[in-house]
Amino acid sequence: MLEISLPDYAEETIIKFIEDFVGNRKVVIGLSGGIDSSLTAYLSVKALGRENVLGVHLPEKNLNKKDLEDARDVANWLGIDFRVIEIDDFIRPFDKIGIKDRTALGNIKVRIRMTILYSIANEEKRLVVASSNKSELLTGYFTKYGDGAGDLHPIGDLYKTQVRLLSKKIGMPEKIINKVPTAGLWEGQTDEDELGIKYDLLDKILYGIEQFMNDDEIANELNIDINAVKNVRERVENTRHKRVMVYIPKIGLRTVGIDFRE
Amino acid sequence: MLEISLPDYAEETIIKFIEDFVGNRKVVIGLSGGIDSSLTAYLSVKALGRENVLGVHLPEKNLNKKDLEDARDVANWLGIDFRVIEIDDFIRPFDKIGIKDRTALGNIKVRIRMTILYSIANEEKRLVVASSNKSELLTGYFTKYGDGAGDLHPIGDLYKTQVRLLSKKIGMPEKIINKVPTAGLWEGQTDEDELGIKYDLLDKILYGIEQFMNDDEIANELNIDINAVKNVRERVENTRHKRVMVYIPKIGLRTVGIDFRE
Repeated sequence: MLEISLPDYAEETIIKFIEDFVGNRKVVIGLSGGIDSSLTAYLSVKALGRENVLGVHLPEKNLNKKDLEDARDVANWLGIDFRVIEIDDFIRPFDKIGIKDRTALGNIKVRIRMTILYSIANEEKRLVVASSNKSELLTGYFTKYGDGAGDLHPIGDLYKTQVRLLSKKIGMPEKIINKVPTAGLWEGQTDEDELGIKYDLLDKILYGIEQFMNDDEIANELNIDINAVKNVRERVENTRHKRVMVYIPKIGLRTVGIDFRE
Repeated sequence: MLEISLPDYAEETIIKFIEDFVGNRKVVIGLSGGIDSSLTAYLSVKALGRENVLGVHLPEKNLNKKDLEDARDVANWLGIDFRVIEIDDFIRPFDKIGIKDRTALGNIKVRIRMTILYSIANEEKRLVVASSNKSELLTGYFTKYGDGAGDLHPIGDLYKTQVRLLSKKIGMPEKIINKVPTAGLWEGQTDEDELGIKYDLLDKILYGIEQFMNDDEIANELNIDINAVKNVRERVENTRHKRVMVYIPKIGLRTVGIDFRE
């Protein structure tokens, strides 16, 4: 009952969404060398044509060097333009203002990447395509105004499990599909270590939560400790602030508001 | 009928909102020296106590030098901690990747400011208070993931007209209230030039739009050319993408979703 499959229409729906949303504009995508951005780039190429998609890899000079090769291979596989911009010089000024906390530094890197992608987008009249998936969005496993930022989120309604299924279906190179998921912000970081749970199980729990099953039902269904379920639900609830537009106190004046969602 | 007043309860409502939202945490606010961030800082101090509010001025070395003095005066008036961080070194690396477009450069500055404020927030366990007002939010006169970013937007439901009324009421220094509104991104930039309309009139038109009045009704009521109304409505509609969380194609799987608003 909590098995996660990939609907037949998923690929087509996403491609139509991109086509419709972007129209005759061009896009830029941050290509990390991981599965999410590779799939997003693939779908964008299908929707817009490869000449309208630019991939940009934004590495640190001495971190995760293998990713550059992977990102380049993905760009070659898709036949899209590819640029590499090292972010070290962009990060350095933050040293001088005394930022030392690892999380703070990680968030800086992600926000600098966003700022670079948008600067290219502004300069070349492109839209920024984000690569966040549903598992990340629901658990808040992303940086607010960083990798969670973009003009459209094509795979935002696909769990990581579905990202893998779709990537296999479209014939993405195996080495990309089989990489250990990581945000790549420091040596040895992995998603599943940080989340404290494997994506396979996480996604099933999220699926249960999304269907309004309670903790007991989900734990029984999956035959797991209820605390694993509680932890995921807590994470979803505690990260809600990352999934709403803005928190604004309503002052009134008889208006009905235009289109804020909080 | 389209006169904009300030409800009696506005100040109290906003203060309670900040108090409730922030709890016993601390905040950081970008203090530009303008009326919006000054009012936001004032309200934050009332809600949280001056010891829990940090103001940071983020100037360019050779631009709008008067603003530093104004921001410092506001910090002194409120009795809050105040820091100055010049952004020139943070911007320079973007030269090297060929960004030349004025809007692109302006957006970089704003996003760098956001990134610096969040780095301080991460490092010192603070929330970031944004200073966007309703007139800016509705017209999209802000940078997505830049000055539109923050953990809470205390004056986000106040039109600029109301920001002025409340600032007078609380006794803000006159020189701050009377400054020409500007995003300060290049020499001589002013909001009203860029928007092509004075805030007094803009706010009345927005108020009409928010009450579902049509263009004719608003133009008649205000005794103005209907094109002024059309222009504002177009701006509101064209900037909708800045006021929704994320655009995601729905894939389904029988979920009802948790709390995305698009």
